[in-house]
Amino acid sequence: MMSRIDRYIGGIDLGGTKIVAVVSTEEGKILSKDKVSTPDGNFSDIALTMVQSLTRACSSASISLGNLSDVGVGVPGSVDEQGNVSVMPNLGLENVAVEVELSKLLGKSVAVENDVNLATLAEYYLGAGQGLNSIYGIVPGTGVGGGYVVNGKIVRGKNGTAGEIGHMVMKIDGPLCGCGHKGCLEAFVSKLGLARELREAVLRGEDSVLMQHQYSDFEAVDSQTLRSAWDAGDDLLHRLLKEQARILGVAVSNVVNLTGVEGFVIGGGVYEIFGDVLLPIVRETAERHAIGGGMSDVRIVLSELGGTAVALGAVLMVRG
Amino acid sequence: MMSRIDRYIGGIDLGGTKIVAVVSTEEGKILSKDKVSTPDGNFSDIALTMVQSLTRACSSASISLGNLSDVGVGVPGSVDEQGNVSVMPNLGLENVAVEVELSKLLGKSVAVENDVNLATLAEYYLGAGQGLNSIYGIVPGTGVGGGYVVNGKIVRGKNGTAGEIGHMVMKIDGPLCGCGHKGCLEAFVSKLGLARELREAVLRGEDSVLMQHQYSDFEAVDSQTLRSAWDAGDDLLHRLLKEQARILGVAVSNVVNLTGVEGFVIGGGVYEIFGDVLLPIVRETAERHAIGGGMSDVRIVLSELGGTAVALGAVLMVRG
Repeated sequence: MMSRIDRYIGGIDLGGTKIVAVVSTEEGKILSKDKVSTPDGNFSDIALTMVQSLTRACSSASISLGNLSDVGVGVPGSVDEQGNVSVMPNLGLENVAVEVELSKLLGKSVAVENDVNLATLAEYYLGAGQGLNSIYGIVPGTGVGGGYVVNGKIVRGKNGTAGEIGHMVMKIDGPLCGCGHKGCLEAFVSKLGLARELREAVLRGEDSVLMQHQYSDFEAVDSQTLRSAWDAGDDLLHRLLKEQARILGVAVSNVVNLTGVEGFVIGGGVYEIFGDVLLPIVRETAERHAIGGGMSDVRIVLSELGGTAVALGAVLMVRG
Repeated sequence: MMSRIDRYIGGIDLGGTKIVAVVSTEEGKILSKDKVSTPDGNFSDIALTMVQSLTRACSSASISLGNLSDVGVGVPGSVDEQGNVSVMPNLGLENVAVEVELSKLLGKSVAVENDVNLATLAEYYLGAGQGLNSIYGIVPGTGVGGGYVVNGKIVRGKNGTAGEIGHMVMKIDGPLCGCGHKGCLEAFVSKLGLARELREAVLRGEDSVLMQHQYSDFEAVDSQTLRSAWDAGDDLLHRLLKEQARILGVAVSNVVNLTGVEGFVIGGGVYEIFGDVLLPIVRETAERHAIGGGMSDVRIVLSELGGTAVALGAVLMVRG
């Protein structure tokens, strides 16, 4: 006989390319999952697609939307107290009242939070951060996302911007970042940073397997192409990724020197592929830079929950 | 009729040049205070002087050491869970069991904590941080001390090293810091950083009123001499201190981007003197660099408690 489930919770991950919806128990056991491409267009189209995806997930779990006690949503942007999102660069959207619009469509209140904050919350309870009291999540991707969880709660900070490790300045007056300032972590340790460094190296006359790509298009190089170039022994790529790992290691030691956090969970495509080579560089650099043995027994690990981390984090956020 | 005080608490500040001892109520009302020069020599001599100072403070309050319910102590170094201090550079001491030695001398248990952590705790409850849930204390001096207090508790972190903002790297591969690494905040925003920059400027042929000091002795320039040179309109000094303030502003935005802390309390001689000119530069820079309006309503102020902050913080730490 199947045990009766007291409470169904919905979690939705709004990503730049895909939407993931799950139905879960309050313990974070996923009962069903739906995945669909994020439509181009305005937020109304996107919101409708999100609701349809969650509806399909409900059907797979043999329940209706009305059976969901709560719904949590992760979005790729900073979220204010009212659930408004000022900018979602990957979606080309600005000033969206995500909470209000989704609540209207679903006929129930929803809670909205930054996606990397939620992924970090999920790793804290159910993934690579289990057993620690505080973790910092870092996701180098096109940019660098971050999340900070202490004692089981997302640290949002005074204005909801805590966790923005991508814009920690690592090199005063360094290379320009997408945010308009100089020398941010994101200007180094990201796909955009790698593309800039590849371009600069090529202009200096260095060679790379990746040169078969137009060098103005290094931004478009995907993780699998990077892997092929790495496996082909591309010296330049090896050097640049290892240098990125060194800079990430200094960033980790900065966070430890400031906050004494107990662990780091690293996500994103590059670390999924090259983590075995790069994480030791991150750790060694961080241990060297942390003051007073500050890195002793501090965990640095890859994320474990992959593509469902954000949706799971959304569930954990609203379970109360 | 005087009201009866239920509980007397002792607080001691062990500084590089002076020792301050107070007797206080548990609310942090100082009943008496003693101040004495820190003796040269080994820790036994220093510990004896600390106990004598606290004994005199007790006398002034018409009580005996035995009437103190608890004693807290602030030291200029990192403190482990057992109250051992690995390095106190300003005292030339290493590996001192401060808690054990003082407990023995006083015949009662004492609690030991880093001095800037305690000063920040005092500012949180009784000084410039009142009314906020979290503050970061920054004290640029010979080096740069820091402390982090959240919800009324000192954040010590995994290995007791939280608050070490002085060793946040601000410029990867930048100028050498006293810690042996490169580009730390302390390598810029400190007396040592200023001395290095003055030397470099003089070697480039720039002129300064401070040149009347041997340029190898810029480390020895005291705050009053700086003030005279500033008031004399020393262009080089003005430029260097403003540049330090800009770098401190970027450091402040880094902390906000990472943690979303609600306020900063800045201490130390240079900011006591030049705060009115430098704090606006710190704020303007931090506001520009913080992501998503992260600095909105974040407080940046000078410390208020001055020379008794550490001893008061020691009292607040042990009052339970």
